[in-house]
Amino acid sequence: MLENLKHQVYKASLKLVEQGLVIYIWGNVSTIDREKGLVVIKPSGVSYEEMIPADMVVMDLNGNIVEGTLKPSTDTDTHLELYKNFTHIGAILHSHSEYATCWAQAGRGIPPLGITHANFFNGEIPCTLPLTIEQVENNLELETGKMIVNTFLSRNLDPMRIPGVLVYGHGPFCWGKDVSSAFDHTVVIEKVARMAYRTLVLNNVSPVEKILLDHHFFS
Amino acid sequence: MLENLKHQVYKASLKLVEQGLVIYIWGNVSTIDREKGLVVIKPSGVSYEEMIPADMVVMDLNGNIVEGTLKPSTDTDTHLELYKNFTHIGAILHSHSEYATCWAQAGRGIPPLGITHANFFNGEIPCTLPLTIEQVENNLELETGKMIVNTFLSRNLDPMRIPGVLVYGHGPFCWGKDVSSAFDHTVVIEKVARMAYRTLVLNNVSPVEKILLDHHFFS
Amino acid sequence: MLENLKHQVYKASLKLVEQGLVIYIWGNVSTIDREKGLVVIKPSGVSYEEMIPADMVVMDLNGNIVEGTLKPSTDTDTHLELYKNFTHIGAILHSHSEYATCWAQAGRGIPPLGITHANFFNGEIPCTLPLTIEQVENNLELETGKMIVNTFLSRNLDPMRIPGVLVYGHGPFCWGKDVSSAFDHTVVIEKVARMAYRTLVLNNVSPVEKILLDHHFFS
Amino acid sequence: MLENLKHQVYKASLKLVEQGLVIYIWGNVSTIDREKGLVVIKPSGVSYEEMIPADMVVMDLNGNIVEGTLKPSTDTDTHLELYKNFTHIGAILHSHSEYATCWAQAGRGIPPLGITHANFFNGEIPCTLPLTIEQVENNLELETGKMIVNTFLSRNLDPMRIPGVLVYGHGPFCWGKDVSSAFDHTVVIEKVARMAYRTLVLNNVSPVEKILLDHHFFS
Repeated sequence: MLENLKHQVYKASLKLVEQGLVIYIWGNVSTIDREKGLVVIKPSGVSYEEMIPADMVVMDLNGNIVEGTLKPSTDTDTHLELYKNFTHIGAILHSHSEYATCWAQAGRGIPPLGITHANFFNGEIPCTLPLTIEQVENNLELETGKMIVNTFLSRNLDPMRIPGVLVYGHGPFCWGKDVSSAFDHTVVIEKVARMAYRTLVLNNVSPVEKILLDHHFFS
Repeated sequence: MLENLKHQVYKASLKLVEQGLVIYIWGNVSTIDREKGLVVIKPSGVSYEEMIPADMVVMDLNGNIVEGTLKPSTDTDTHLELYKNFTHIGAILHSHSEYATCWAQAGRGIPPLGITHANFFNGEIPCTLPLTIEQVENNLELETGKMIVNTFLSRNLDPMRIPGVLVYGHGPFCWGKDVSSAFDHTVVIEKVARMAYRTLVLNNVSPVEKILLDHHFFS
Repeated sequence: MLENLKHQVYKASLKLVEQGLVIYIWGNVSTIDREKGLVVIKPSGVSYEEMIPADMVVMDLNGNIVEGTLKPSTDTDTHLELYKNFTHIGAILHSHSEYATCWAQAGRGIPPLGITHANFFNGEIPCTLPLTIEQVENNLELETGKMIVNTFLSRNLDPMRIPGVLVYGHGPFCWGKDVSSAFDHTVVIEKVARMAYRTLVLNNVSPVEKILLDHHFFS
Repeated sequence: MLENLKHQVYKASLKLVEQGLVIYIWGNVSTIDREKGLVVIKPSGVSYEEMIPADMVVMDLNGNIVEGTLKPSTDTDTHLELYKNFTHIGAILHSHSEYATCWAQAGRGIPPLGITHANFFNGEIPCTLPLTIEQVENNLELETGKMIVNTFLSRNLDPMRIPGVLVYGHGPFCWGKDVSSAFDHTVVIEKVARMAYRTLVLNNVSPVEKILLDHHFFS
């Protein structure tokens, strides 16, 4: 079932490795069939080299496995929480790409400093607050999902206009209407993370004004 | 018509991608046949992978399309403004290369700090002022062109000796007598942007003196 | 004898070069057969290009050569000292990878600033003190081994939970239960060295708390 | 004549490009047959792509061309001055490699901060003083050679123990007993330039002590 989506998740997973956005066991990809209410997600515990499309796990939004013999990605609960709350997104990618992870480790959102950023992200890419120890001990992945949702709600951000977030001390999660778009946002978040880092070393400039951001956003 | 120029624009566009100077939809290339008064420019809305030489758009200096079924690059008005005012240039390339874009985002011109710079750029590579909101809302691309021209006029700079500029908050535009030379300037501006960034981290040195710059300029 | 281990040492040596973690004569790899008490180590004075598996040197823990016609790696005494004192480790890799070496040259341990670090290293990756001139003149390699062991003992660190160290002014040594695991730690130490460098430029954050580190450690 | 040396100069020139140490027309290579008193040097005005071994120019130490139809490298007078004064060197390479050039542009010598440096360079890699305008207008290349020689004489440095220099505002020149050794020093100077840059960002450490440098120098 959902063979096309399985292929998309599989191929995006391999592209993350090819483009140097993840190494080892880090990173994961999922997509959703909104009509059927089914999520396809990368399995856990299989190396990128050995993985095949049929390994992808199919589950409902409550995490009940519908097809697949492998354990789903350890970050599954984060993905499900995002699909439930960000009802227009169709795919999620999580990477440990270098510069985006540095901003996440530094606990700083990435300010919009130019058109490259503004084309894909209509404002600062936020960084969540750190989880409390209770949250970590309770259900780290679920709490991470809630923290992301809360970050968007409390700042009144539209996840379709800011299609990514930095999880404090961890790394970026990006999404989009489909796998291809979520992948693009994963590439661009790393690009703007690199550029913002160096821009601020050169000059402590202010973010681009909202009216200009709006003008440049590819909606 | 102008098949040779179409090939040059097409091939330079692909080389920008190959050398990592642009990704996605960013960047564009054009050239001009000064005798015929015709400009050949990369189309908009076609990915680098799918583009073929016949997709290149031919237009006159007023932007009237003479040949081609696709929309010309969104930055067309910037290119035309430069061709009208910088009457010796034969080609223009726009990239979002990483370090040059960082200087543009930081709003700083790149000072000439060594011979690598001086060989191709006879002085600081200027950064334009930011556009006003009125300019953005009027005609962003045309106003960008005017801003570049004004930057050169107001500082009495010769565009054949300073064959490139940083557009504030956006990225570099480079030019030259032909596509090949404009491409070289696009590569070199990124190179000197990288070097100047690191040089200033090591030591806040002054620019090279004018008499030495002149000595090293390949005219 | 120990043909399988020789192949592992040989292949890991070549992979260090392929992945840009060493150039020239720098770097070395060894592994141990704990039952037989024999160590297999890369030879000295043979370039990576010319080396073959049969060149690997076999010795006992006192450094007596059991098989092999070439001189063992100049860092042999460091390796032997680690095998004697860290009794659960099965392989050691030494590289001059760029960022890890910079932390070693700066005399600073790499603080745990995120999950990427915490997955493989359960705390700060320590940097040794500098050797004294007497230690350098006595037996540099043996004293380096003793210094590493002392660093772990004096700070009460478990080498299976912190599977690597920075040798002051020199570079990283990593280990693991086998060659494959020691190789992974060598890749990850460079990755976290890069990330920690940039994170601290962005924000002088504190290390991740111990309880969170424990939660994320892949034991 | 000197076909073997021509091949060495030719191949080292191409390797400089392959390893990203020069682009475009920058960089040059020469070697000397001390018995015959003849220097073989890369020609000027031929691109790396088009160059063939037979294009290499043969000249005596006074710059009289003995064989070859092309103009010798523009930096020829610098090379000849070094061969005359550093009587044990057998080859010279000049690159515009990125980080070494940054140190040259910053006017700072590269301090010895670790073993990677100490293995090949027995102390700080000096940066020359800037040339005066009179020197530039007289004979830039000859004066550059004299400046390098004077830098070594005035600081009592042995060019066989410090086999390279940074020319102020320009870039690195390295040498060695033969082309292969000069090439290694060109690679290592870039490596240590990268490492020293990042080490000093992490911690403003002092150079390694002389007695330790001596211990680690591969003579």
